[in-house]
Amino acid sequence: MKLAIDAMGGDHAPKEIVLGAIKAIQAFPDIHIILVGDEGKIKEHLTNDERITIVHTDEVILGTDEPVRAVRRKKNASMVLAAKLVADGEADGCISAGNTGALMAAGLFVVGRIEGIDRPALAPTLPTIGGEGFLLLDVGANVDARPEHLLQNALMGSIYCEKVRGVANPRVGLLNIGTEEKKGNELAKKSFELLQQTDLNFVGNVEARDLLEGVADVVVTDGFTGNMVLKTIEGTALSVFSMLKTALSSSFKSKLAAAVLMPQLRELKSQMDYSEYGGAGLFGLKAPVIKAHGSSDANSLYNAIRQTRDMVQKEVTTTIRQVVEKKS
Amino acid sequence: MKLAIDAMGGDHAPKEIVLGAIKAIQAFPDIHIILVGDEGKIKEHLTNDERITIVHTDEVILGTDEPVRAVRRKKNASMVLAAKLVADGEADGCISAGNTGALMAAGLFVVGRIEGIDRPALAPTLPTIGGEGFLLLDVGANVDARPEHLLQNALMGSIYCEKVRGVANPRVGLLNIGTEEKKGNELAKKSFELLQQTDLNFVGNVEARDLLEGVADVVVTDGFTGNMVLKTIEGTALSVFSMLKTALSSSFKSKLAAAVLMPQLRELKSQMDYSEYGGAGLFGLKAPVIKAHGSSDANSLYNAIRQTRDMVQKEVTTTIRQVVEKKS
Repeated sequence: MKLAIDAMGGDHAPKEIVLGAIKAIQAFPDIHIILVGDEGKIKEHLTNDERITIVHTDEVILGTDEPVRAVRRKKNASMVLAAKLVADGEADGCISAGNTGALMAAGLFVVGRIEGIDRPALAPTLPTIGGEGFLLLDVGANVDARPEHLLQNALMGSIYCEKVRGVANPRVGLLNIGTEEKKGNELAKKSFELLQQTDLNFVGNVEARDLLEGVADVVVTDGFTGNMVLKTIEGTALSVFSMLKTALSSSFKSKLAAAVLMPQLRELKSQMDYSEYGGAGLFGLKAPVIKAHGSSDANSLYNAIRQTRDMVQKEVTTTIRQVVEKKS
Repeated sequence: MKLAIDAMGGDHAPKEIVLGAIKAIQAFPDIHIILVGDEGKIKEHLTNDERITIVHTDEVILGTDEPVRAVRRKKNASMVLAAKLVADGEADGCISAGNTGALMAAGLFVVGRIEGIDRPALAPTLPTIGGEGFLLLDVGANVDARPEHLLQNALMGSIYCEKVRGVANPRVGLLNIGTEEKKGNELAKKSFELLQQTDLNFVGNVEARDLLEGVADVVVTDGFTGNMVLKTIEGTALSVFSMLKTALSSSFKSKLAAAVLMPQLRELKSQMDYSEYGGAGLFGLKAPVIKAHGSSDANSLYNAIRQTRDMVQKEVTTTIRQVVEKKS
């Protein structure tokens, strides 16, 4: 299996990307990695090039670039070339920690949609108190969604959850303002009707308040709402931790006590760190395209590689295609 | 000034409601409170009835009642009668900690809309790290909003923030998936254009991730998205606190350290307790209608009364009406 990685994307590229690739190569004897980016800079960190190839390019898409325009104009950008390796059949999947919008555009224009999937969905796995996590889709690929799109999100999410995360008969919830039927905006009400008619394990409406409690394995919504929920979880957790830090360093006594608790607090913070579950999958494309978090370190990148490998090995894309074909 | 209070609404009614009313009467010599509900049960807790009148009724709207139907059928419910006192001019504003949907229906059908306001908005003030808080509207009164509604939310929120919270020239932000112009779904893009043309202090798009950092004083969005953000903040904060509690009681040593830190942790939790800012205002009605949190204790109720008093005194409703008239 060959995986293409944008070595220049993310806050800590290329160093952490290269280190993550080396770690993955050591863990998985069945993969070959193609690092796309500045060869000189990559080599500075490449202490082991067993089953690692470099495709050199100088061009990079920046975080500040306008996504669609960047993908169209910077045809030799590391991210675009990584996607092109997938489109050309030279890689089975690709990963980038760079500009999210640009990766969505590269996925759509370069890798291409599965026939029958109207809109790809961006799907991260978020933490739950119990540690099992839940898949949220969409978080921003499709901000003006229709009910059919939410139905497709449910199908794709369910397949991913079963195949990659090993959840039998995943519980699919519709994100809504209340748990009762007939709740919500027009989109939610119509999506509820559609989801009820499927053979998915649809558990009905779920509320944002209960997400981290693990009320569902797959939670579907439109890209605008999903983006809000994702960023609100991140923002709230960060704010609470920052307030906690201030509170614990307010006096000498509290600093001492906080020092004793440091291992527990660190453990708590890592429980909220969803890069443990891998990156956000861009579902509905002809091959796995994974968005690793912008602040990815070697370990997050390693997790994203493991996830991409799982998606290829468990044939997630093929299964989505087959299910969509059967439905239409 | 007379304020009508649904004495039977909320998890701790009527006890905490009555205690909150007594506290408010002691603090504000200019108010008279009408408690609506079961006279016998109210009197059990009414140790001081100076400037407190009781309007007796046996009927109550439950949390499980379907809102619109309940308001239409239970014409003598404590919540409905409290709203009716306002409609009849016998009270200047009303408060309930009961069924949110029913209070929105009672506000709309009994108290009535300000002419020119298409849809009322439910607006809580949420905590920020710095303690100043921000007003979020709408959080669920209007789940299928149009750009004009968001514009009206901005006007109403800005007036409230200036008059009641004493913020000069409040910063109004549009909740969106990114800070750049042209971001977001159709609703957000069109709302951005409308907001830009006003003389409000419009600071552009704000991201959900930055809300608790205090990026704006007034944040406008549709009721579906706002509800998600509100409940995600609540759910995430609760989950983090629950994980913190588990982490801190994991060993004898950590329990000891946690005991030392208890005052700081309690302080932290109260920083996240937004009932300190009062209840959620139902803006766009002919008089102040305030939704206190369902779990309100005497202190939350007291804060909601203070807030309602401020709204009456600072003529928030009159100002909204005047601004809307001028615009149309």
